[in-house]
Amino acid sequence: MAATKLILALLLFLLVCSSNIASSKNSRRPKPCRRLVLYFHDIIYNGKNAKNATSAIVGSPAWGNKTNLAIPNRFGDVVIFDDPITLDSNLRSTPIGRAQGLYLYDKKEILTAWFGFSFVFNSTQLKGTINFAGADDIMKTTRDLSVVGGTGDFFMTRGIATLMTDAYEDDRYFRLRVDVQLYECF
Amino acid sequence: MAATKLILALLLFLLVCSSNIASSKNSRRPKPCRRLVLYFHDIIYNGKNAKNATSAIVGSPAWGNKTNLAIPNRFGDVVIFDDPITLDSNLRSTPIGRAQGLYLYDKKEILTAWFGFSFVFNSTQLKGTINFAGADDIMKTTRDLSVVGGTGDFFMTRGIATLMTDAYEDDRYFRLRVDVQLYECF
Amino acid sequence: MAATKLILALLLFLLVCSSNIASSKNSRRPKPCRRLVLYFHDIIYNGKNAKNATSAIVGSPAWGNKTNLAIPNRFGDVVIFDDPITLDSNLRSTPIGRAQGLYLYDKKEILTAWFGFSFVFNSTQLKGTINFAGADDIMKTTRDLSVVGGTGDFFMTRGIATLMTDAYEDDRYFRLRVDVQLYECF
Repeated sequence: MAATKLILALLLFLLVCSSNIASSKNSRRPKPCRRLVLYFHDIIYNGKNAKNATSAIVGSPAWGNKTNLAIPNRFGDVVIFDDPITLDSNLRSTPIGRAQGLYLYDKKEILTAWFGFSFVFNSTQLKGTINFAGADDIMKTTRDLSVVGGTGDFFMTRGIATLMTDAYEDDRYFRLRVDVQLYECF
Repeated sequence: MAATKLILALLLFLLVCSSNIASSKNSRRPKPCRRLVLYFHDIIYNGKNAKNATSAIVGSPAWGNKTNLAIPNRFGDVVIFDDPITLDSNLRSTPIGRAQGLYLYDKKEILTAWFGFSFVFNSTQLKGTINFAGADDIMKTTRDLSVVGGTGDFFMTRGIATLMTDAYEDDRYFRLRVDVQLYECF
Repeated sequence: MAATKLILALLLFLLVCSSNIASSKNSRRPKPCRRLVLYFHDIIYNGKNAKNATSAIVGSPAWGNKTNLAIPNRFGDVVIFDDPITLDSNLRSTPIGRAQGLYLYDKKEILTAWFGFSFVFNSTQLKGTINFAGADDIMKTTRDLSVVGGTGDFFMTRGIATLMTDAYEDDRYFRLRVDVQLYECF
């Protein structure tokens, strides 16, 4: 009977519909709609490396200065950065974008940071920005920041970025692996 | 008749469906899916309290310095903090997390601030972070900031945080009551 | 037949329903649910204009200071601002709110900035805040930041803000045209 077939089709449609809604909003942890694994490289200015440096201390506590990271645990240092983003962990690979913004060291007892920054892409393959904010509990193997928005190819996106310290040369260089997991895509 | 019953069931389902969608997206002010009322405590470094201080001035205007809040209205001071979060208003209660990030005083005429920070939880009961950004119109009894994202137990959350100054000891200590109202939960 | 009519009505309802979902979440670039075009005006403190200045350098790199923008390209300067927002491009128009927060110059080679700030409205027509974060590639005609949240009349909003430099008087004054396009409204 035609009516029954239509009703069955409707039910099927509703099931698909509701499972979509569930996966995008209600389930514990949906699958990312987009994922990027990238690296960025930070070389801090130390008074002697103006040419190579990609970041600089611009704020420091009463007991600090702008060419040496504060003691203890860099607490109170504010750093502005413009770091190359690469597809692999090699500092000399062709950058596919820039990580730009600030980080600050915010704890006396151990090393922790807070980040507010953007990935800025402007190539033929990738245009737009991804904006990040969140705490970086550096002593942990991985830690999650929020993707709070995006523009261009990443219009209105949201998600999570999992950071891993991929290399760390005290007071000179660090490299972060960023696993960007986007859960809202347009 | 079976077809009619099915249709009625479908209509009911659709009504429930659409009201859900409406409550989560279109209504004027939905109910929070999660709510937390917490306190955090800020003791600013003044040159003499290195042991107790939980925050420090790290940027100041041309006319300021890093052990005294700027005059007038602290305009231009940037403060980094790592403040204990407690369930009640007692500074000595066991912290359930840390509020970490920065605030800055941004107006010459009256006291106003801008916050970018995270609540960081790492206990058996609560793991993850909530990320905040927004203006703090300090002279108002309550003011709202945005919850711009979250991780862990607060994966992908969004919402509003209503701040109240719960205590204020000039240039030494303040305590904020934060009513976190989350409207997107996963 | 009644059953067929009901089914047709249901199908129509579903179509409307699904197109709504599509337009709010899945389509490439939906239409804004709200749009505001506003201007804000920034007069930076230079050591002599304390009365007129709306912003001040509060962090600078090792080679900079707080009354002159750093060379080259202001890299490393952190500025706190409380700028009037107007409906037209005239600095002397009655402000309808304040833009408050921070920007920082983050590149050595060219002029780029990073913004974290809020539009704060408190008039009879408009109450609440819009919170922004993102990279400002100043040398481009237009560039997009993220609207990461809102409060009051802009409760839980998200979207994009397109910036245009509307006026620029080196080291003294700039005016930004901000086209706020909101895609999530409550």
